[in-house]
Formats: sequence, C-alpha cells, structure tokens
Amino acid sequence: MRAVIMHGPGDVRVEDVDKPTLVEATDAIIRVTSTCVCGSDLWPYRGAQKSRGPARMGHEYVGVVEQVGDAVREVAVGDLVVGSFVASDNTCEICQAGFQSRCKHQVMMGSVGTQAEFARIPLADGTLVKVPGEPTPAQMRSLLAASDVLGTGWFAAVAAEAGPGKTVAVVGDGAVGLLAILAAQRLGADRIIAMSRHADRQALARRFGATDIVEERGAEGVARVKELTDGYGAHSTVEAVGTQESMMQAIRSTRPGGHVGFVGVSHGVELDGRDLFNATVSLLGGPAPVRRFLPELIDLIMADEIDPGAVFDLELPLEEAAEGYRAMDERRATKVLLSV
Amino acid sequence: MRAVIMHGPGDVRVEDVDKPTLVEATDAIIRVTSTCVCGSDLWPYRGAQKSRGPARMGHEYVGVVEQVGDAVREVAVGDLVVGSFVASDNTCEICQAGFQSRCKHQVMMGSVGTQAEFARIPLADGTLVKVPGEPTPAQMRSLLAASDVLGTGWFAAVAAEAGPGKTVAVVGDGAVGLLAILAAQRLGADRIIAMSRHADRQALARRFGATDIVEERGAEGVARVKELTDGYGAHSTVEAVGTQESMMQAIRSTRPGGHVGFVGVSHGVELDGRDLFNATVSLLGGPAPVRRFLPELIDLIMADEIDPGAVFDLELPLEEAAEGYRAMDERRATKVLLSV
Repeated sequence: MRAVIMHGPGDVRVEDVDKPTLVEATDAIIRVTSTCVCGSDLWPYRGAQKSRGPARMGHEYVGVVEQVGDAVREVAVGDLVVGSFVASDNTCEICQAGFQSRCKHQVMMGSVGTQAEFARIPLADGTLVKVPGEPTPAQMRSLLAASDVLGTGWFAAVAAEAGPGKTVAVVGDGAVGLLAILAAQRLGADRIIAMSRHADRQALARRFGATDIVEERGAEGVARVKELTDGYGAHSTVEAVGTQESMMQAIRSTRPGGHVGFVGVSHGVELDGRDLFNATVSLLGGPAPVRRFLPELIDLIMADEIDPGAVFDLELPLEEAAEGYRAMDERRATKVLLSV
Repeated sequence: MRAVIMHGPGDVRVEDVDKPTLVEATDAIIRVTSTCVCGSDLWPYRGAQKSRGPARMGHEYVGVVEQVGDAVREVAVGDLVVGSFVASDNTCEICQAGFQSRCKHQVMMGSVGTQAEFARIPLADGTLVKVPGEPTPAQMRSLLAASDVLGTGWFAAVAAEAGPGKTVAVVGDGAVGLLAILAAQRLGADRIIAMSRHADRQALARRFGATDIVEERGAEGVARVKELTDGYGAHSTVEAVGTQESMMQAIRSTRPGGHVGFVGVSHGVELDGRDLFNATVSLLGGPAPVRRFLPELIDLIMADEIDPGAVFDLELPLEEAAEGYRAMDERRATKVLLSV
C-alpha cells in the first residue's frame, strides 16, 4: 500500500509499504478514506524536533472498517469510523475520567501512521466511534477535523472553562486555535478574542464566533486583551501554539482565578514557578482526550450544527502529500486534507 | 509600640516603632491579640530570599478593632476580627470570583507587619471578618490559624479538588500541609496520603485525617503514591513547600486528569513545558484567597468542628519573637504563636 514517509526535515515521500495486518484480537484494520497533515507534523518537518529517521506519518483519520480482531465488539466491517490520535481502551480509570489521551494502555497513532491507504487501529472498541448515516462531502471533512484539531480545540476551550459569562482569548490562529473559537462559541462564551495577524484566518475566526481580533503579540497583545476586559484579562485563554512566547502570552492575558487551556505541543517552554504562583491561574493542557468529545462532535457535525471542516483550505490526493507539507510549512494552507 | 523587625538573615529583634494611625477612610486600626511566625518568614530569615533590610514582619493576626476610618461600615470598635494576609476590597470582579488574594486593590499585609502590638488594616470592610461570641483560648488559636495557614491549606485542597471519591496526596508537612490534610478530610476525601518523615508531624497528620503516610521523597515518594493508587497516582495533590523537588513530586504523584493545588511560595522552581504537557494535570496555585473561606472557617472553629490551632506547638510572648523564629528555623516547632 502507499504511505507517507518522512525521511528527514523537508523530505516527505509517498512510498510502498506493507499493508498492516491484525496483531492483537482487539485491533481493527481500516481503509483510510481521508487523513491530513497536522501542525505538529511541522515540528520535525522544520527540523525543530529530532526526526526519528525514515518515519511513518499521520495520526488523523476517517475510514471504513475492513477487518476486526476476534475481541472487537463495538465496530464491524463496513462501518464508517472516526478515532483520535491516541488509541485508548476507554475503560481504565483515566479514560473513565475523560482523559483517554493518557489511557493506561494508550497507543500513539503517530507511531502507527495514518497518512496511508490502510491503518491498524489498536484497541478498536475503545478508540473508534461509528458514524451514523451517510455523510455529505462537507460532513466528511468535518469528521476528519474531529479526529484531532476539532477535538483538541474543544478540549482546550473546555480546559479553559469557556462558557456563558466568560471572555475567552485564543492565542494561535492555526486550525486548533480556530476550532477552539468554534468550541468556545458553542460552549456559550460571551466574547471571544482571536489573537491573529492573518486576514484569511481572522475571517475564519469571525465565522467561527470570534467577536474581537487582536493583532498584537507578546506584551502588547496582553495589554490589548486587558484593555478589552476592563483591565482584568480574559476569564479563559486557549494556548494553541506551544512556544515560550505564546505560553506566556496566554498566562499573562488571563485574569487571576481564570483558566488557561494549553494544547500547543510544548517546544522549549520553561515556566518560572514564581510567575506561575503570582499569576494565580488554573493551567490544564496536554494531549487532548479527543475520544471524550467524539460522540458529541460527530452528532453536531451530522446535524450540520458545526462546520469545522472549513479549516481545510487545501485538498490533495495522498500521492501529493509532499506538496501538502510544503503548503502548510509555507503558510499557504492552514490545514491540508489528503484524500485516499 | 513594640514590633518585630528583621534586620537581616537570622537577626530578628523586637523594637519600639510608631503606633500606626488611620491613613485612608477605609482603614481600621486593630489591637493585635495574637500573631505568628509563618513558614514564608523563614525564607528571608535563612537568607534564601533577598532581605529588604530592616523590615517589619508578620501578616497573620487576630485582633480587636480599636479605631475605624469614616468609610468603614462592616466592623466597629471593639469587634474581635480575623483577616487574611492580603487586604482586599472584596467587591472587584476578582474578589467576587473568589480570588481576593489578587484583588484589584490588594495590599500585602507583610508590608504592614502584624507581628506588633497594633496594625493598620487597609480596606477594613473587605478584609476583616468579625468573630461572633466569645472564643475559648483553643478557639482563639484556631482563629489565628485561619488567618493564613488554615485558609491556605484549605485553598490548596480546594484547588486540588479534594472531595468524595478522591485520593489526596499532600507534599509538605509544615502547618499548611497539615491543615490541607484537615481541609481534605472536611471536604470528604476518601483517602489522604501525608508525605512526611517527622514522627510528630505524622501524628498530627493522622489526627487531622491522613489515612496513609509516605516517608519517601522524590521519585521514590512518587512510586509509593502510585503503589497506593493502583499505579494511577493521586486524584488530588497539594504542594505546600515551594521547591523544585516538591513541585515535581506533586505533579508526578498526580494521575492524568488530576489536580495539583500549589501554595508553597515558589523558590527557584522551573517547570519544563513538555513535562507539564505530558503530565496532563490541572495546576492551580498562588497566594491563597483566604478571605473567600474565612466566614466558613470561623463558623467551623466556633462550632468546635475543627481544631486547626493544634498546629501551634510553641507559644511565646511577642517580646520573644527571636526565639520563635529560631525554633521554627531549627524545626523545633511547626508553628509559633506570638501572644501580644
């Protein structure tokens, strides 16, 4: 089968690899119908993260179940399914508490590689959620978004306790940041401040529910958020970048007693304990437990209540994955869908 | 009047200073009846924190109102009152959200200095809480504890979301850690793991509600907490020390999705962003909004439902403050009460 392989920074190729087979009785094999390139894939692509050498890529996926192991009960051959970027049993205490991304038996799907024609999904019953009905093409795009960027943005908004009466600030205007805006709007936030300096992303931010745009960054960005909130800062802030600057911008934009949800994969971030002590804000982040939200998100998508697929602004066949990476790296695209 | 002055590390004296007078119409002057030495006073005492030169000390107090400014409405001359270590208006948005320690108009009482015969309390209406009835000597000790260590331990337990069904770990066996145990017990925690290696403090920890004692520290301490929790870690962890080791011990002792409440004043702590991302725990800490809890704590004390005053294991007259500091520094005492 064909699969995306990253050989090193900037070097992405589509090559022939063995088709996966069932390993555990709890596995399923899916025929991937669509997958995509993640902002986090850009870290190794840019050499900002040590590359594992030639490595399979991809952790987002929508697909059709092709084969199931003997122990699989919840999904069947032919089912259209979505899963998150972490396979989880959905039964351990951590999963039951809604943190499936840190399941006792977690398997990172990035190590499996879903930018491919087929993928082995471990812990299929816990991981995969069946999609009811026949999605439209637009719904299919949105379902793919649910696999990571929507679920991650949603978690960030929930972690930041976005809701009625709250002013939410969102640091980062990539797909996750934009979808955190959508989430904050759905969760009932009064006001949503998008921190963005790109016109096209500002437009999407507004479509998703942003009420204010702040173009400034760093201390100036913080000052603008405070200006917009009677000097107090936001109640809820989403951090969706992962750098020192964005993290401090998020913490400092938040009022004492407020909440920061951080989902940008942390790169070189060091938080000074005294700064954090003085900030007196709640901080919750990490790999998003997308599985917690998937059933609800799939329902919203199939009812056309949300349109997260709008973040995909470039669609390419899997064979042209290299161009997809380039387009995202060069910021010509916010989020690239690879159709299989 | 007599007041405690720290001239430098290890150099605490009781000297004559001017009696405070009303400055703002919102001020009150109280005659301090008892005050105490705080664990945080030991940082400058040990030279671990830059000393301000000769400095007034103390931020905990119970007292009787002696004089009020023209704008004061809620307390009157003769009232027995308790306040927290931060004066707050109790009306701004931050106070209303329960974070009075970060009030828009906050005044740190440490800059006032309550280890003295009298103290000026700014924002008296927002800061002071009147004590009903006639406290017994034991209740008076407990009221003094409410001024900081009880309120801080309580906040830490609330920030860690201690409650029914939860296993709570407490890092730090000083007065704050011990009172966080009391708080966790009152909040309904199922199980409370005290991390302590001092027999006398272990005994008090058990009296306050600890169900398990872990003597190991660092990685071994974390391993023991995991052993006690089916490998998952605590749901809720209180950090009440403020060092890198204690902070990491707290974070690592907590299961994914769990909560860390940190109230040890941070000294030299640096948190690696990736560690925090991977931990996937909620972190909330800072100067405790003791004022939020004071009315409830005073009621519990006056009803003899809690006995936080038990943390005071040495009582000295104000004149002997230097010995009080020494005793705490040398760990001969957990918490020293200074009677005025």
